[in-house]
Amino acid sequence: MTPVSTFKSFDGTLSVHDHDSAVTGTVMRFAVFVPPQAENGPVPVLWYLSGLTCNWSNVMEKGNLQQAVARHGVMVVAPDTSPRGEGVPDDDAYDLGQGAGFYLTATQAPWSQHFAMDRYITGELPDIIAANFPADMSRQGIFGHSMGGHGALTLHLKHPGTYQTCSAFAPIVAPMQVPWGEKAFSAYLGEDRAAWAQYDACELVRQQASSAHILIDQGMADNFLEDQLKPDLFEAACAEAGQKLTLRRQAGYDHSYYFISTFMDDHIAHHAKALG
Amino acid sequence: MTPVSTFKSFDGTLSVHDHDSAVTGTVMRFAVFVPPQAENGPVPVLWYLSGLTCNWSNVMEKGNLQQAVARHGVMVVAPDTSPRGEGVPDDDAYDLGQGAGFYLTATQAPWSQHFAMDRYITGELPDIIAANFPADMSRQGIFGHSMGGHGALTLHLKHPGTYQTCSAFAPIVAPMQVPWGEKAFSAYLGEDRAAWAQYDACELVRQQASSAHILIDQGMADNFLEDQLKPDLFEAACAEAGQKLTLRRQAGYDHSYYFISTFMDDHIAHHAKALG
Repeated sequence: MTPVSTFKSFDGTLSVHDHDSAVTGTVMRFAVFVPPQAENGPVPVLWYLSGLTCNWSNVMEKGNLQQAVARHGVMVVAPDTSPRGEGVPDDDAYDLGQGAGFYLTATQAPWSQHFAMDRYITGELPDIIAANFPADMSRQGIFGHSMGGHGALTLHLKHPGTYQTCSAFAPIVAPMQVPWGEKAFSAYLGEDRAAWAQYDACELVRQQASSAHILIDQGMADNFLEDQLKPDLFEAACAEAGQKLTLRRQAGYDHSYYFISTFMDDHIAHHAKALG
Repeated sequence: MTPVSTFKSFDGTLSVHDHDSAVTGTVMRFAVFVPPQAENGPVPVLWYLSGLTCNWSNVMEKGNLQQAVARHGVMVVAPDTSPRGEGVPDDDAYDLGQGAGFYLTATQAPWSQHFAMDRYITGELPDIIAANFPADMSRQGIFGHSMGGHGALTLHLKHPGTYQTCSAFAPIVAPMQVPWGEKAFSAYLGEDRAAWAQYDACELVRQQASSAHILIDQGMADNFLEDQLKPDLFEAACAEAGQKLTLRRQAGYDHSYYFISTFMDDHIAHHAKALG
């Protein structure tokens, strides 16, 4: 781990680190916010997965995050959204390649050499966190925004014992049925849609609901609501599967961090309550 | 006024506008956050002046501002830090020219044609705010960061009846005695130091203390503390002049918005309490 920068924030410590990832074959950068309560012993860990084009800084700078987690005594880890760098394949579009990892393991060239953000986040990065930070790895939650909401929902549903709590801001809930997902999954996974279902929250919840109560906030003035997000599909799938879900439709809010920051306190309280 | 963008945030409205300024002779951009309480009538107005290189977006995106002012029912206006654009003089350095207006009226060429941020903020922009927003102009406060802290302190001390409350994050308090100020004042005002004193908070408070209680937060890990900020000088000047001041030295905090956001709630409460 190579230190990049450190900031004091709300009496806790935000630190940014680089490390060589065996999973992605690249240098990966992540941020960790450690709340002041960690001085007295390990604290629960909350994973925040960002949306398209973002990295650790969006939520730490604009998310209104640290105040709430410093109050509740929760650590937050913010990974990047993909491998990056000169040797990593990319695409001119913002929604494919670098910054658009979609929290899956790519099977198609040229992406398969580096793109495996789900294995990185569930396998390699937790070991680094456990070894280097005052983290209670028996209490973890996961949340995210947009593409990162998709990541949070799918990783929670596939690993409910690891990520015991889950929430999302304006998540992609049905990537198999929307343009962002169809484009990314075609590129990363190929045209066989049977391989896509393991990365689709609506499909996953129908296979196996979790015992958690999922919280989703969705802005009703979000430009991506109708074409890309379609929270109604997840609401219906949860109802069918018996998955506990609170989906809040927030009038007037868009897809930006102005929306996220407004409801951040509620999400942190949601996780903190369940993680103890 | 030309609308640029609008965002819902903490149940209030953040809007960004362009307008032709007669004072600067340029198009000027500013942002206003109107809290939800304004639906019931005019609310107090708080002016936030940004630091070097910044514009309206820094504090609105990273300042943890809207949550606190939406709670207290205060409007915030965030002007730019200088005129900008192709016809406006500039300098390659970040601390002179565009983004570095220093809240003064330049008397020296080439700056004197456009740079008059103090007259813009105290004269022209308030008329626009009063005419277009639910503002109670009889209750105004002012605060800012770094160069904007300098702006807030000097404009408060020169116009205590207008800006009845004042606070600052890591302000420049003695520009006549530090490199940032000496460079900018030489360029904008010329070499006659007698003309500089009207823009130096330490000089102004010695001439006439205000009846307000000024709040300043200063991070003790701020890279600019020793060479550019020197809050001790203002503390001594206030003691000499009988100016009420709370100067809080915050261990471990730097010059960034991580520092500002941490103490934003306290500053908003400070203004809201005095503005009623």
